[in-house]
Amino acid sequence: MDVDEARRRFGSARRVVLATQRGDGSVDVVPVTFALVDDTIYSLVDHKPKTTRDLQRLRNVRRDANVTLLADQYDDADWSALWWVRAKGEARVVDEGPERDAIATVVAARYGQYDDNEPMGPAVVVDVAQWLGWSAS
Amino acid sequence: MDVDEARRRFGSARRVVLATQRGDGSVDVVPVTFALVDDTIYSLVDHKPKTTRDLQRLRNVRRDANVTLLADQYDDADWSALWWVRAKGEARVVDEGPERDAIATVVAARYGQYDDNEPMGPAVVVDVAQWLGWSAS
Repeated sequence: MDVDEARRRFGSARRVVLATQRGDGSVDVVPVTFALVDDTIYSLVDHKPKTTRDLQRLRNVRRDANVTLLADQYDDADWSALWWVRAKGEARVVDEGPERDAIATVVAARYGQYDDNEPMGPAVVVDVAQWLGWSAS
Repeated sequence: MDVDEARRRFGSARRVVLATQRGDGSVDVVPVTFALVDDTIYSLVDHKPKTTRDLQRLRNVRRDANVTLLADQYDDADWSALWWVRAKGEARVVDEGPERDAIATVVAARYGQYDDNEPMGPAVVVDVAQWLGWSAS
């Protein structure tokens, strides 16, 4: 799968997973909603009030900017439809201010569920350095 | 979410994602089919013939046994239905022999798509040391 197709498929996903490194030798993985603009992935900490779990993700990124995200399609009835796209890049946290607010607007625009519940919390911005895609067919 | 419920939800997932560490400071994440028995997660390298990408996963595990897996449910129309379960543990590769064949049987039994295509390649076995679950409701 070429880079343009990988980027397109990733951008069309509704939720992806974000892997960050904890610093104790282990990896944390969480699902996130997001928006992709060119080679930049924007996500927000959570739809729900912050918990220690959310803060862990931010601590990880502040300590080690290397993150990986994965979008994939799984179809139990047809494995020829399987595909995944992996993005690796450098992440940074945007705690507050105009940039965070702009990111919240961009992400919220993709999700109807934000209608009743404005996105809260810091943003995580990932500049993707490497796209890798695989497709079963 | 308590550990029993986390384990139950993880075990009912059809595909999960596996995060391994490459050794260059970055993390690889791939979707995998699997079977959960007690606190052990069994997966096979691939339904498709091996590629360098599959071998990377095995190289990662052989170098660093610390892996993380994530099961999650996403519902675009109802974020109160969201949940995820994260498993951390130590992984090992079973290349061939009776143990690998037994694992292939256990994993294949969960997936109708294996009917026409017996599972191939080495198995990855993860002994889960930590379950962590989150649910939106």
